[in-house]
Amino acid sequence: MKMNDVEIEDTFAEAFPMYFGRILITAVTKRWVLASAQSATGGVGGASLIEAGIECNVDSKDSPDGRPGCIIMVGRTKRKELNRELIARIRNGVVPVPTTATFNAMPEDLTDYFVEIRNTPIQLFGDGYEEIVDIYGRKMYKIPLMDGFYYIDTKLGVKKGVAGGNFLIMGRSPAATLLAAEVAVKAIREMPYVFIMRPAASGSKVGGKTYRDAGSTTNERYCACIAEKIKDTRIPSDVRCVYEMIVNGLSMDSVKNAMKVGIKAATTIEGIEKITAVNFGGVLGGLKINLHDIL
Amino acid sequence: MKMNDVEIEDTFAEAFPMYFGRILITAVTKRWVLASAQSATGGVGGASLIEAGIECNVDSKDSPDGRPGCIIMVGRTKRKELNRELIARIRNGVVPVPTTATFNAMPEDLTDYFVEIRNTPIQLFGDGYEEIVDIYGRKMYKIPLMDGFYYIDTKLGVKKGVAGGNFLIMGRSPAATLLAAEVAVKAIREMPYVFIMRPAASGSKVGGKTYRDAGSTTNERYCACIAEKIKDTRIPSDVRCVYEMIVNGLSMDSVKNAMKVGIKAATTIEGIEKITAVNFGGVLGGLKINLHDIL
Amino acid sequence: MKMNDVEIEDTFAEAFPMYFGRILITAVTKRWVLASAQSATGGVGGASLIEAGIECNVDSKDSPDGRPGCIIMVGRTKRKELNRELIARIRNGVVPVPTTATFNAMPEDLTDYFVEIRNTPIQLFGDGYEEIVDIYGRKMYKIPLMDGFYYIDTKLGVKKGVAGGNFLIMGRSPAATLLAAEVAVKAIREMPYVFIMRPAASGSKVGGKTYRDAGSTTNERYCACIAEKIKDTRIPSDVRCVYEMIVNGLSMDSVKNAMKVGIKAATTIEGIEKITAVNFGGVLGGLKINLHDIL
Amino acid sequence: MKMNDVEIEDTFAEAFPMYFGRILITAVTKRWVLASAQSATGGVGGASLIEAGIECNVDSKDSPDGRPGCIIMVGRTKRKELNRELIARIRNGVVPVPTTATFNAMPEDLTDYFVEIRNTPIQLFGDGYEEIVDIYGRKMYKIPLMDGFYYIDTKLGVKKGVAGGNFLIMGRSPAATLLAAEVAVKAIREMPYVFIMRPAASGSKVGGKTYRDAGSTTNERYCACIAEKIKDTRIPSDVRCVYEMIVNGLSMDSVKNAMKVGIKAATTIEGIEKITAVNFGGVLGGLKINLHDIL
Repeated sequence: MKMNDVEIEDTFAEAFPMYFGRILITAVTKRWVLASAQSATGGVGGASLIEAGIECNVDSKDSPDGRPGCIIMVGRTKRKELNRELIARIRNGVVPVPTTATFNAMPEDLTDYFVEIRNTPIQLFGDGYEEIVDIYGRKMYKIPLMDGFYYIDTKLGVKKGVAGGNFLIMGRSPAATLLAAEVAVKAIREMPYVFIMRPAASGSKVGGKTYRDAGSTTNERYCACIAEKIKDTRIPSDVRCVYEMIVNGLSMDSVKNAMKVGIKAATTIEGIEKITAVNFGGVLGGLKINLHDIL
Repeated sequence: MKMNDVEIEDTFAEAFPMYFGRILITAVTKRWVLASAQSATGGVGGASLIEAGIECNVDSKDSPDGRPGCIIMVGRTKRKELNRELIARIRNGVVPVPTTATFNAMPEDLTDYFVEIRNTPIQLFGDGYEEIVDIYGRKMYKIPLMDGFYYIDTKLGVKKGVAGGNFLIMGRSPAATLLAAEVAVKAIREMPYVFIMRPAASGSKVGGKTYRDAGSTTNERYCACIAEKIKDTRIPSDVRCVYEMIVNGLSMDSVKNAMKVGIKAATTIEGIEKITAVNFGGVLGGLKINLHDIL
Repeated sequence: MKMNDVEIEDTFAEAFPMYFGRILITAVTKRWVLASAQSATGGVGGASLIEAGIECNVDSKDSPDGRPGCIIMVGRTKRKELNRELIARIRNGVVPVPTTATFNAMPEDLTDYFVEIRNTPIQLFGDGYEEIVDIYGRKMYKIPLMDGFYYIDTKLGVKKGVAGGNFLIMGRSPAATLLAAEVAVKAIREMPYVFIMRPAASGSKVGGKTYRDAGSTTNERYCACIAEKIKDTRIPSDVRCVYEMIVNGLSMDSVKNAMKVGIKAATTIEGIEKITAVNFGGVLGGLKINLHDIL
Repeated sequence: MKMNDVEIEDTFAEAFPMYFGRILITAVTKRWVLASAQSATGGVGGASLIEAGIECNVDSKDSPDGRPGCIIMVGRTKRKELNRELIARIRNGVVPVPTTATFNAMPEDLTDYFVEIRNTPIQLFGDGYEEIVDIYGRKMYKIPLMDGFYYIDTKLGVKKGVAGGNFLIMGRSPAATLLAAEVAVKAIREMPYVFIMRPAASGSKVGGKTYRDAGSTTNERYCACIAEKIKDTRIPSDVRCVYEMIVNGLSMDSVKNAMKVGIKAATTIEGIEKITAVNFGGVLGGLKINLHDIL
C-alpha cells in the first residue's frame, strides 16, 4: 500500500489500555497556561511508565472562567497509579504556577470514574482554610494561596483509553525524517481526545538481549546507524533515520484517527521512504492497530 | 532598609544543602534543545522534593560538538536520590528527544564526586551495542538510537550546593506582583551556576495545623486573600498579592548574588510594597541568608 | 455604566473606512508560517498609515494545501494604495520565506473587488517561467523559486471595512494596565474578521499644537505622566497608565464585537479604573462606535 | 575545496556598501523587547531595498537602563534614505510598543556620522512636551506617552558597512536544505555586528529576460524545480533545493566571519551537496567576497 508514494507496511501497532485524566488548566494569560501545562506534563517519557502531554489550547471564550486555557492528559496503566499521578502533577505543576485554575475536562459520557480531590494533597494543602463553593456553574474547591484563591473541580473524570498507538517514520535523510516527524506531531495535535509528546528517537524493545535485567533497551533492528551489523535489521537499504510517533487517546477511534492524520502528514515530506509500526508479539497489551485498516 | 523605595525586611531566607548535577544538552537546533530541557526539568516543584531547571543557553560556538545547547541542573537532598534522579531525567527527557547529546557541565574545580553512566539505565539501554569512544576531546558513551548515535560523557559531576534561597515579593496589585516576579526570574536567569523554576504562588509551611499528617500546607500567614481572618498574618495592609522566588545554586555565593539581582529587579516595578523571605525556625536546613547582608 | 466594576465612559470611538486584503499564508511548518506572517505584517503602525496584522491561525486540516497556515490582513485607506501595499507585502514578506504559499482568504460574499496578480511584481518575478495551473480546486500562479514552486491565487479579494475602532484602558498601575492590554489583545485575536497589532503606548492627536507642521503628535491629554501640567487632561486622579487598543476589521459588526470582547477582558484585571475611547471631532472619518451601545 | 565533505565552489559573493544604524531597544520584559524588534525590522526583504534585522539579545545587566534588550540594525544604500528609514522604523515600531526605550548602539569608533533626533517625527511627536535630560549617563529625549516617558538618545550613530554578503546552500532534499539554512541562520546570529533576516527562497537576478521592465526576477539558473528546462542551469544533478543566506554587517571582516561560521554550520547537515555564492558581474556593487578566501 502506498500513500503519497510512500510505502505503508502491512503491519500493526501494538497498543495497550491505559487510564487517563483530562483536565483544563486556565490562567490569566496564555503564557502562564503554557508554563503550567509544560510543568505538569514534563519529566515523563522514556522509561518513566507515565504518559502526559498537551492535547490542545482552549480559547478564553470557551473556558468556564473566561480565561485562556490548555487541555492536558495524564496516563498510567494502573488505576491507583493514575489517581496518584494525576493529583501529584496538579499539585506540583499547576497549583504553584501563578494564577492557575483547574477544571475537569473529561466529557461526562466518556467518564469511567472520578478521582475525588477530597483527602488528596491538593485538598490537604488548604489546611482547613479551603472551602467548597459554587462557581462557574460547578462545585469547586477554593484554596487560599499567596497570590489569591486557587480553584479546582471537586472531582476529575478518568477514562480507560488507549496508549501506545504508534508508527515509525523511515526517511532517506535525518533532516527529512525529522521534518516529517515535526509535521506529523503538529497534525496529530489538531485532533481531539489524543496527545503525542514528541517524536521518539529511542525506539525500545522489552528487556535486553545482552543485558538481561534491563527493563527496556534500544531496538537495534530499527537503528539505521548500525543496520549493517544487525542480521535481522528492519532498515530498508535507503533509510538513514527513523522516528517513532506514539499516540495516546481516550478511545481506539480517536487514536486511529490521529494516527491516520499523522501518517498522512508525514508522507507529504519528500525523502520519506516507508511507514511502519512496532509491536511486541502481544507482550505489551494486545490491542492491535493495523496500519492498512486505518488509512 | 529600602531599595528603589521598596522596604526590604530585616529577615533571613532559610536554605538547605542539596546535591546538584549540571549538564549541557545539545541538539541540531535550539528548538530541540529546548524541548529536551523542558522535558528533563519538568514535573518537579510543589511537593515533589525534586528541584530541576534551566540555567542558561549555550551558543553553538561554545559547545563541545558545535551545536546549540542549554545547561540544566537537577537537585535532590540525598546523594543516592540525586544519582538516580539525574540518570532518570536524562534517560526520560534527553535520550528520546531527536538529535540530542549530553555533556557534563560541572566545572572540574566545583565537582564533589562523579556519577558514572556505567551500569545505569542509560548505558544498559545500549544492550551491548554501545561503546566508549574518544570524541570532542572527551570519553563518551556512543549508544545507537533510531535516528543516529546518542553521545553522553562517561561520568557526570555532582556538587553539594544550596537549595531554597528565597525571597517574597509583596505587591499592591496582582498584576504588579506578577510582573515583578517575571522580571526577577529573568534577571536571575542571567546569573551563573543558579536556576529558578518560576515564581511560586503556593507558599507552604512544613506540616499542617488542621491536617496534622499533611506534608506541607498553605502558608496562611502569607495569603493576602485571607489576611483578615489570620491573626498572625504577615501581610501588610496595602499588599494584595505575594510570590515566592526560590533560587538554587552550586554555592552560597552564587545563590546570594542571584537573590540580590532578583530582588533588585523586582523593586524596579511600580506597585511593589515589600521584599521579605521565609524561614522555618531552622527546621529545614539551617543555612541562613540574611537579606540585608546580601544587598 | 460599569462592567466588572470598571467605569465605561459614555463616549464613542471614531473609526474610518479602510480597504483590506485578507490572505492565508501556508508553509511546511507553523514556524515558517509565523516567520512569514510577522515579516509581511511588520514595519507598520505609528505614523505609517498602513495597518497590517495577524488575524488567526489555520489548522492544516482546514487549509487548501493541507499545511498549517495563518490569516493576515493588510489595510490602507485608498484603494490604489491598498492594491500596491498588498502586493508589496506578499512580494517582500511571503515570497522569499521558505516553503510558503498564498491563498485568497476573503470570503466571496464579502469581496468588494479583486486585485489581480497579473502584471504585478509577483507575477513578473516569474520572468516568463511562471504559469497558471489548476490546483487545490483553484486557479493559481506557479512560480519557480530556488526551493520549489511558489503558489498564489490569481486574484485576491478586497473589502472596504472599518479601521480605528478603539478603546483606552486606564489603570491605576503600569503593570495592571499592561496586563489588561495583553489580555484584551489575546481576547480580540479569538474573534473573526478582525485584527489588532498590539497595545499602543503612543496615543496621538492629529497635527500638533506647538509643532504645527507635525502630522501627528502625542495626545498630551491622555499622558498620565504629565497630567498635572495639562489643564484639560482626561486622566482621572487615580490613573497612572493608559494603553490604546486599535481594532480593524472587515465590517462594523466584527469590529464592534471584537471591541466588546476586548473591553470585557480588560475589565477582569484588578487595577483597571476606566475604559474610554478616542475621537477627533469627526475629522478622521466619521464612523462613530459608541461604547455603551456595543456592550 | 571541501568542508565536512561538502564542495565549496571557487567563486565570490558580490556585496555592496550600505549605511547602517544600530540601536538597542529595551523594555520591561523580553517579550515586549521582541515585539518591538520584530515590528521595527519587519516588512523588509524581497524587493523593498531595505535591510533590517535583529543582531542579538542584550542581558538586563548589560543595558544602560537595567532592562532586557535587543540590538537591531537598519540599512539602506543611500545616506538620506537610511536617515529617514531609521527614524521611521523607530517611530513606527518602537515608540508605540509598551515600555520601550531606545539607545544608540553604534560603537563610537565605528561611527561614521550621527542622525540627530532633533526635528525628526520622533522629537516632533513630543509637541513641545518633550525635553532633553541627563539619564543613564547620556543625553536623552524624554517624551511623554500614555504609559509613561519614552527615552531615546539624542543622536544615533551610522556606519557605512557591507550588505549582500551571501552564500547559497544546495541540498539533495528540501528538508536537509531547510534545516541547514536554519542552522546557518542561528550560527550567524551568534556573531557580532552582523544580521541575517532569514533564508531566502527567492533568489533573484537584476532585471528580467522576458519581462524587461521588471526590477528583479527569479534567478532561474538556481531554481532546481525547473533545472531541466534551463540550459545554463547552475544546479548540480543531485540538488533538489537551494536557499540563499544574505549577511549584512558593519564591516567586511564581520560579514566574512559570519559567512564563514554560517557556511561551516550548513555543511554539518547531512544531505548538503554544495555551497556557492551569487554575483552579478559587478553590477551591484563590486565588493567581492571569495568563498575560498574566508574559509
